[in-house]
This record gives sequence, structure tokens and C-alpha cells, in this order.
Amino acid sequence: MTPIEFWYSIGSTYSYLTVMRLGAVARAEGLDVTWRPFNVRAIMVAQNNIPFRDKPVKAAYMWRDIERRAAKYGLPVQVPAPYPLAGLEIANRVALVGMEEGWGVSYTVETYRRWFQHGQPAGSEPNLSESVAAAGQDPERVLEAAMADRTGAALAKETATGEGLGVFGSPTFVVGGEVFWGDDRLDDAIAWARAGRLDA
Amino acid sequence: MTPIEFWYSIGSTYSYLTVMRLGAVARAEGLDVTWRPFNVRAIMVAQNNIPFRDKPVKAAYMWRDIERRAAKYGLPVQVPAPYPLAGLEIANRVALVGMEEGWGVSYTVETYRRWFQHGQPAGSEPNLSESVAAAGQDPERVLEAAMADRTGAALAKETATGEGLGVFGSPTFVVGGEVFWGDDRLDDAIAWARAGRLDA
Repeated sequence: MTPIEFWYSIGSTYSYLTVMRLGAVARAEGLDVTWRPFNVRAIMVAQNNIPFRDKPVKAAYMWRDIERRAAKYGLPVQVPAPYPLAGLEIANRVALVGMEEGWGVSYTVETYRRWFQHGQPAGSEPNLSESVAAAGQDPERVLEAAMADRTGAALAKETATGEGLGVFGSPTFVVGGEVFWGDDRLDDAIAWARAGRLDA
Repeated sequence: MTPIEFWYSIGSTYSYLTVMRLGAVARAEGLDVTWRPFNVRAIMVAQNNIPFRDKPVKAAYMWRDIERRAAKYGLPVQVPAPYPLAGLEIANRVALVGMEEGWGVSYTVETYRRWFQHGQPAGSEPNLSESVAAAGQDPERVLEAAMADRTGAALAKETATGEGLGVFGSPTFVVGGEVFWGDDRLDDAIAWARAGRLDA
């Protein structure tokens, strides 16, 4: 089984569907998954690829699609969730600190739960501190670490690494050099991890 | 079983995956499908939503994604296919004439086969006349009908109808007022046609 890298940014709407189900899917399917937070907005700006800005019809579709698919997965959801986020950078810096320390997945799930189920913008208070606390950490300590320059540099480096792999959106799965973009490509990513092809 | 409207534009790349498999899927699943050609580009321009222009990373991903998914569906494919098309308007006018006369599905499949398997741009010669002939029709007669003002007006009217339903991309499935965008939403559209929900 080839490892799967799950590249995501808190701030991405469709990533809600992946964040909330990936843990259970990985356990059920015996997957080797690494969560890799990055700053998708930096790549989108650089590539002139902002998905929903000034596109109200597409944005309205996105919310309805997420609502239907959340029901399909058995996930509660309140749409539209607050969007776009002011705190994308800090939300993902905290996720990166959490990945280094081992509580990043829990924090990410708690953040998305508050954002998509309770209407609390990710990366702003009270979501930020409450999600850190729910992951068993001290918010004051974690936010200080997240705001440190070294964490900003580390997130930028991760973002550049993702861009180098061909990541341009969130969620993205990278499996043995192949890029699969979108929650709706998780099945393809799993098939690739098992067989190195989709028509096996 | 709620009827499914399949809205598509010849010129859309991902529509290859749907055009080539929808007939077999519809027969196997007992679906009631109506094919509705329209001019997606007119809507995209109006909505400031051109998907791949000036986005080389996203475009390269799109071709690789189509290549992998074509293999998954057992479809031959040569990527990148010629893109974008100069003849999108005429290609879809012919499709509309064909739908009125009963050979439009066959023409659409033949057009995509030549475009995606043999590198012949859809809507240009020799693809245009060869696909009409392969659908059992006289190219001279059909092209004259397609170029008539009434056909242009009919395609514009179909496009406006689609836009009114919330269609903004191709392929799109409309099922009982719900919009499902993308070849990767065909399963959701079928589920909705059967049950009016995805979590049934």
C-alpha cells in the first residue's frame, strides 16, 4: 500500500468533507495517511485560480453540493458556512504546529466542526482557542508558537513543497507522485495506493 | 424514476467521459435521460468563469485526471486533445439539429471519439462532416440547417434555459430541479433520480 499524503488548507470548503471522514476511512481501509497543512490561497493567487470569488452561481452550487454530499456521508452541516476566512494563515500555522507535536489532526477536525456545524469562522476566536483546547493543548502557548516567524517560514516551505508536487487546490491527495484533487477523488487515490492504477 | 437532463457542450473536455459512457449506463440502470446540447462558453464568459485559460497547472492536471478516469471506464484516450475549440458554436448547433431529428446522440459520440481518440478538433473539418455522416446524415444538408439563423436562435434559447436552471458548466445533470455538475456527479444524479436524496 503506497502512502497517501493529504494536502489541505483550513479555509477550503470542500475539505470539510474529507477532514471529517478521512480518519474513519483510513482505519477501515488500512491506509497510511499523512496530513499536510499548507496555504492553498498563496498558490491560488500565484496561479490566478481563485475558485469562487465573483462567481455567485458557482459558489451557490458549491454550498448545495457540499450540503448534499455531507448528507451522503452522514455529516451534519450548516451551509453556507462563513466564507472566505480572514484567519486562513493562522489557522494553518496552528495545524502545522499540531502536526509537529502530534495533535494536529484532532485540532483540524475540531476546527472544521465548529466552522461547518456551528458557524464559527475557522482561524478566528472563539474557534481558534476552543479547537486548540479541544485538542488537549494550551491556547496561549500554541498561538505564540504559531505566530513565531519560524512557523510562518515552515508553512511557506510546506506550501512551496506542495506546489512543487503539483498541488494547486484543497483537498489534494498525493500518491506515489500522482495528484488527485478534490474530496471526490479520494476513492481514486485509494485505488492508486493499492494498485498504482485506476483500472485494476 | 425522475428523468435526468444531461446538459453538455461539445467543447467541454470532461464531457468526453460522460458522452462515451452515458448510453450504456442509462441502459444498465434503466434511466430516462434527455441529452441537451447548449453553449457553455456563453455562460462561462457571462459569469467570469473560464476554467483553464491562463491556468497551466490546473489544465495539466485536468488532462491527467481525464486520462486516468478514461482508463477506469475502459475508454481509449489521447491527451491532451486539441483545446480550446474554434468550432464550439457550430458543433453544438449540429448537435441541436440532430436532437430535433433523432440522430444527435450518435453524432455527439462520433464527434467526441474523433476529438479525443484521433486528435481531430470537434466542430472543424474533417470531424464535423465525418461525424454527421457517421450518424447517417448528409453533411451538406445538416451544415446548412445548422448555420441557419433559426438554429443559432434555438441554441441561444437552450443556453438561456440551462442558465435559468442553474447550469454553469458541462457536463451537468439536472434531476427534479437539482443541479449536479461534472462527470464525477453522475452517480449522485442517478441516486437523486431514484430516491430524491443521496443518503437513501
